[in-house]
Amino acid sequence: MKKGNMLIAQSGGPSMVINQSLVGAVLAAKESRSVGKIFGALNGIQGILDERFIDLRKESRATLEAVANTPASALGSVRRKPTPEDCQAIFKVLRKLEIRYFFYIGGNDSAETVHIINEEAVKAEYGISCFHIPKTIDNDLRESDHTPGYGSAARFVACAVKGDDLDNRALGGVKIDVIMGRNAGFLTAAAALARTEKDDGPHLIYLPERAFSMDRFVKDVKAAIKLYGRCVVAVSEGITDRTGTPILAAYTQETDSHGNVQLSGTGALGDLLAKVLKERAGIKRVRADTFGYLQRSFPGIASATDAMEARLVGVAAVKAAVEDEISSGSIAIKRRATRAYNVDFAVVTLRSVARETRSMPAAFINKAGNDVTPAFMDYARPLVGPLPVCTRFAQLRAQP
Amino acid sequence: MKKGNMLIAQSGGPSMVINQSLVGAVLAAKESRSVGKIFGALNGIQGILDERFIDLRKESRATLEAVANTPASALGSVRRKPTPEDCQAIFKVLRKLEIRYFFYIGGNDSAETVHIINEEAVKAEYGISCFHIPKTIDNDLRESDHTPGYGSAARFVACAVKGDDLDNRALGGVKIDVIMGRNAGFLTAAAALARTEKDDGPHLIYLPERAFSMDRFVKDVKAAIKLYGRCVVAVSEGITDRTGTPILAAYTQETDSHGNVQLSGTGALGDLLAKVLKERAGIKRVRADTFGYLQRSFPGIASATDAMEARLVGVAAVKAAVEDEISSGSIAIKRRATRAYNVDFAVVTLRSVARETRSMPAAFINKAGNDVTPAFMDYARPLVGPLPVCTRFAQLRAQP
Repeated sequence: MKKGNMLIAQSGGPSMVINQSLVGAVLAAKESRSVGKIFGALNGIQGILDERFIDLRKESRATLEAVANTPASALGSVRRKPTPEDCQAIFKVLRKLEIRYFFYIGGNDSAETVHIINEEAVKAEYGISCFHIPKTIDNDLRESDHTPGYGSAARFVACAVKGDDLDNRALGGVKIDVIMGRNAGFLTAAAALARTEKDDGPHLIYLPERAFSMDRFVKDVKAAIKLYGRCVVAVSEGITDRTGTPILAAYTQETDSHGNVQLSGTGALGDLLAKVLKERAGIKRVRADTFGYLQRSFPGIASATDAMEARLVGVAAVKAAVEDEISSGSIAIKRRATRAYNVDFAVVTLRSVARETRSMPAAFINKAGNDVTPAFMDYARPLVGPLPVCTRFAQLRAQP
Repeated sequence: MKKGNMLIAQSGGPSMVINQSLVGAVLAAKESRSVGKIFGALNGIQGILDERFIDLRKESRATLEAVANTPASALGSVRRKPTPEDCQAIFKVLRKLEIRYFFYIGGNDSAETVHIINEEAVKAEYGISCFHIPKTIDNDLRESDHTPGYGSAARFVACAVKGDDLDNRALGGVKIDVIMGRNAGFLTAAAALARTEKDDGPHLIYLPERAFSMDRFVKDVKAAIKLYGRCVVAVSEGITDRTGTPILAAYTQETDSHGNVQLSGTGALGDLLAKVLKERAGIKRVRADTFGYLQRSFPGIASATDAMEARLVGVAAVKAAVEDEISSGSIAIKRRATRAYNVDFAVVTLRSVARETRSMPAAFINKAGNDVTPAFMDYARPLVGPLPVCTRFAQLRAQP
């Protein structure tokens, strides 16, 4: 085994379990005789360039475990793609610190960063192991059955929609919940896990994988109200029309001629859909919530499976780099084809997960494009874990 | 003790623990020999008028306990103020069912409903006990130290802001969280419980009890960024300007001359504040979330104290009506002046809690009107209970 120091950092959007991966990697490194110092760079590659590091060996086991259970990147994050010049500056710092092992936790953009750094390192003949540790609530990394962070965010969404459905049942009308995931519908789809009884919401689910039609939406909601007397809708923030134009942009261009429209307002899509339903379907009580950042940062409700797997991808990356002396790669979660849920961790190339993403497979979306399939439910259930039990009365009619 | 049947119903906005009160009342009634049948009316007084009842004696103990832990009104809810004619129709139904005990769970509007029904019953010489059982996440009922439902909603807010503050720490910029409570700031104030360390957010808190100035807001945020390098803001949905005009209305009138503005959009206030900060303070990364209905319906995170007290106000109402033979009233929570947290349940008049509400006492708001005081923290902490522990690294600088 080649001996050397290690550097680890976090990048991109935080998740509830991103620190599990960090702590998993640190604990694995501490157990290895091949790893010397363990540097944590603050705010990803920005912290390397600025030489802002903390000594992760000096953190107590108790602190490490507590940080592991704390949402959002404990080392701080950044969104920055390194240029070849950045890479040279980074190598200058890393060589000074005698870094042999480099780990970067994040999504596909972070994988691309590692890929760039790795390619530049090879060119520069700098013998360093470059590993990407996966994280994204969007669940859109290729090669993996699912990604660390998704299960917990999906658990938040399922819980939130479950409570929201009960709220809507009590007061009636239509409730629209706008859920994260610009290009992949996995997180929005998780709303379906809120259902227990046949008439439970969400009654409609709209994903970015299918073109959204406003006319169809209005018809769908009317039909649901006829059936259930009310309607709960889960909709992805990333829905687009047939041409791929975001619905908010498409619809606003359609109706507003002042040209002075703010498209990026966080609550705007939900408000638009609510307005359309009031106007076109004549529904009086329509409410919309946009779940926002709570989906990725709410403390105390992480999925146990997700937390454990996030820990283990961190361990797997260190094992691959240090014990197996693999020079670069990312860790993918592969699900076994067994009946009981079980996974393996595999080393895949950086190229295979960098940049491009995946979206919901067609088998997970119903024909009408307004719901998920039982196959999705089977896929997602073990990732999210058991939800709080919510019960109704048997509702036996009273006799006077 | 006068023997007779009982009717119970729920009204107004749901909460996470409103079913605790329902189940508390039902269990207390089942233990009394003075109560015959226990009718649950569906959707409040609407269900009485429509004669939609369920038999709550037939619900199993297991179901009752499971429903108690389920958010949102299990009997359904309604927003309707009874007319004298409604009251006559209601009495016709209640007399047919031989109802002697009437319980109605809700906020100040629901208390007013009970007050009206009680006054009309006296006029009609119908010997019925009319009791209001308090519930409101707004915490704005007079006579009570606090109201069932508040502690759990406050716990959601505190958890959400805690996670959100960690998220903001990781990526920087400004985060605005818009919190429920149109006229009372208690729920927005609970965001302060998210703080553990001195530099934790929320760094600014704006309540409906103080006039909101956009200029002052921009200055406050700039100052916070200077101090912390970032800023998390908790703001009530009900903030108004000096004249009492909602900020959204005031600001939109100021800048838009087309007169075609939707004021009720759920995400609109957060979006407006974010836009103003970007434009006037030149801050690049500004995000806004509106917490919405999740605050009152999220399952599995209720405050244990709140859940217990909600149960006990239901028990107390039945005890007052059935055992103590009090003809009408509401239950108030009174906090003892002891160091350790402790409460008593008192019977107060319907008139004293109906209609009018209370807001945050001046002692809970700081002088600048942009934060709460330690007195508020002492007040709110026992109601919310312990939050998930979130930890940072000791952050010991690494030596190369």
